[in-house]
Amino acid sequence: MERIRRVDRPTTLLTETIQRIDARNTAYGLAGRGDYGPAVQRAVATPLPDKIPFSAAQKQVVEHLSLLEANPVARKVAPIPHDPELLTRHIKAAGYFLKADIMATCQVPESAYYSHDRHGNPIEARTQNAIVIVMAKPWQAMRASTGSDGMGDPISFQAYQHLGLVAETLANYVRRLGWDASPQYGPSFVDKYVVLMPPLLLLAGVGEVSRAGIVLNPYLGLGYKAAAVLTDMPLVADQPVDFGLQRFCQDCRICAENCPSQAISAGGKVMYNGYETWKLDTRRCASFNFTNKRGTMCNRCVKSCPWSLPRTAPHNLVRAMLVRSRLAQQIAIRAAYLLGTGQDQPGEKWWFDLQYADHELRPAG
Amino acid sequence: MERIRRVDRPTTLLTETIQRIDARNTAYGLAGRGDYGPAVQRAVATPLPDKIPFSAAQKQVVEHLSLLEANPVARKVAPIPHDPELLTRHIKAAGYFLKADIMATCQVPESAYYSHDRHGNPIEARTQNAIVIVMAKPWQAMRASTGSDGMGDPISFQAYQHLGLVAETLANYVRRLGWDASPQYGPSFVDKYVVLMPPLLLLAGVGEVSRAGIVLNPYLGLGYKAAAVLTDMPLVADQPVDFGLQRFCQDCRICAENCPSQAISAGGKVMYNGYETWKLDTRRCASFNFTNKRGTMCNRCVKSCPWSLPRTAPHNLVRAMLVRSRLAQQIAIRAAYLLGTGQDQPGEKWWFDLQYADHELRPAG
Repeated sequence: MERIRRVDRPTTLLTETIQRIDARNTAYGLAGRGDYGPAVQRAVATPLPDKIPFSAAQKQVVEHLSLLEANPVARKVAPIPHDPELLTRHIKAAGYFLKADIMATCQVPESAYYSHDRHGNPIEARTQNAIVIVMAKPWQAMRASTGSDGMGDPISFQAYQHLGLVAETLANYVRRLGWDASPQYGPSFVDKYVVLMPPLLLLAGVGEVSRAGIVLNPYLGLGYKAAAVLTDMPLVADQPVDFGLQRFCQDCRICAENCPSQAISAGGKVMYNGYETWKLDTRRCASFNFTNKRGTMCNRCVKSCPWSLPRTAPHNLVRAMLVRSRLAQQIAIRAAYLLGTGQDQPGEKWWFDLQYADHELRPAG
Repeated sequence: MERIRRVDRPTTLLTETIQRIDARNTAYGLAGRGDYGPAVQRAVATPLPDKIPFSAAQKQVVEHLSLLEANPVARKVAPIPHDPELLTRHIKAAGYFLKADIMATCQVPESAYYSHDRHGNPIEARTQNAIVIVMAKPWQAMRASTGSDGMGDPISFQAYQHLGLVAETLANYVRRLGWDASPQYGPSFVDKYVVLMPPLLLLAGVGEVSRAGIVLNPYLGLGYKAAAVLTDMPLVADQPVDFGLQRFCQDCRICAENCPSQAISAGGKVMYNGYETWKLDTRRCASFNFTNKRGTMCNRCVKSCPWSLPRTAPHNLVRAMLVRSRLAQQIAIRAAYLLGTGQDQPGEKWWFDLQYADHELRPAG
């Protein structure tokens, strides 16, 4: 990430008019309340991960992890230099030591805090720093998964399980050093988030807004999950990045064309709640995935995105050119279309297609 | 590991005379009871990881993880082929998906079960298979650590935290498929083990007995930790390996010479409780580390061992030659002595030397 150009502001607007979101109004909340119709409401009555034995196992582990009680903040701050630069390097190194794929930092903007948690309790917007933790999703499984085989959740949860481990450990450690720290990670059923991650990812320079409506990292594409530790530890914020994605996504529509629910916009960016973004149709995306009889989350946008390709030498060479040249972008988009980026590789499939029905495992679909 | 020669029996004897070990008689147990003298007994009265804030944080996370209650074994076995070969491939792939570094399998020999747990309850030796999970220790931190800076525990716990995550998830998943499964992982304070890991590592072909008295893997050297899931799932056992280590360790004494407590034998192998092995003087090793004023575990044997060097192309080339040629072994040992394998790289140090004293953090040493 050191090679990516840093800029003062994210490449998409974050305006003054952003309204804080109520955590009850996320896709899961709306679906559960029936706003997406009765079929979707029925489907989410049983948590999605509980459909598939592997994700159900992962869920129990990460759910248990999230119940770890916060240790007290040390009464005295540790006898170490309180130099924000040094502390930033230190905490990032600690994250990498724990196997994070990318560590970044930013200040938490007030607008990134949810207004209320899922139980309707108001959330206080504080002045805090965010230690952002990024974990790649497993590419091989993503490549083998068709999107209708129940591997979407296991793939995401693999990242979330590791994020939980890192976030809980770092938060516990920071509190021992004498600063408050609150781990923020998913999946959705883990009731930890008091902030929205996308603005933090933009501000900390993890990526830029993509056509898929989510933040894209130049090395991981859409194939990652992110967590954060919010803290009053003095830290230096990273800067946003500009690797030319706004032009790229303007020309490339692979994710939109691959989306089985037509939830990704084929048009231009819009202003949405004060954010400049391609607007994902959350209702379509969620409704499709929640009622997907042969799986959970489909991941088609992630695996079809050319930026999600693994970090091999040839792909990294292309990355280096894309960042520098509009022509390279245009050629790469053509090539991605021709080569069928993210095609399914069923030969690499290792899992059984099993689903629960009446509390018993049955062959899926 | 597919390139390593497989053999019918481990390259060191496991005889019929092996007596099951009482878990109360491990180094921690003996030290705690005063068998290693009053100074060591006093030192282990406070758990070692609690000396250092980073390992204390890791400890709380992995300890909490280990409290996850076992989910029930599904009443019906899942509708999947009960072909041991297929199931072995499947469960190994699931482990790799969860980021294990090496997956292996073996039958658990009766002698590998502890006779009693740490509370004195007898442990039943059952006929079970072991799914062995191996996680590399972080090499960069190992290289930077001097062994008297409190990084020994954080390095081991990084591996254990990830092992715990994988073992708990796999065990939960196997139970959902309808077979019993019991996760086995450390560190010592996690009360999970009903078996000794070294015999499983030998039988599953993870490595051979080394001069340091522990099992050495050809790609990770001594730089790894291992866990297991014991299960009655039908599995095919891997075969033990022979990569020429018995001759190598006979000629090489780097670990013995680097051991700050002279706990590693410079002589030949002996028979110990029915196992053929170089005998580590556990009392010396434990006493040194437990009373190490400037740290926790020293890791000097791990970092000085030439086999622990990272898996870069040149090192892997040397590995390939070592496995085939006695002459290559002799040259490599000379080279390792000349080049000072595992020298400290203090420039890569990222941590603060902090220790608890009277519940407050102080600069260490």
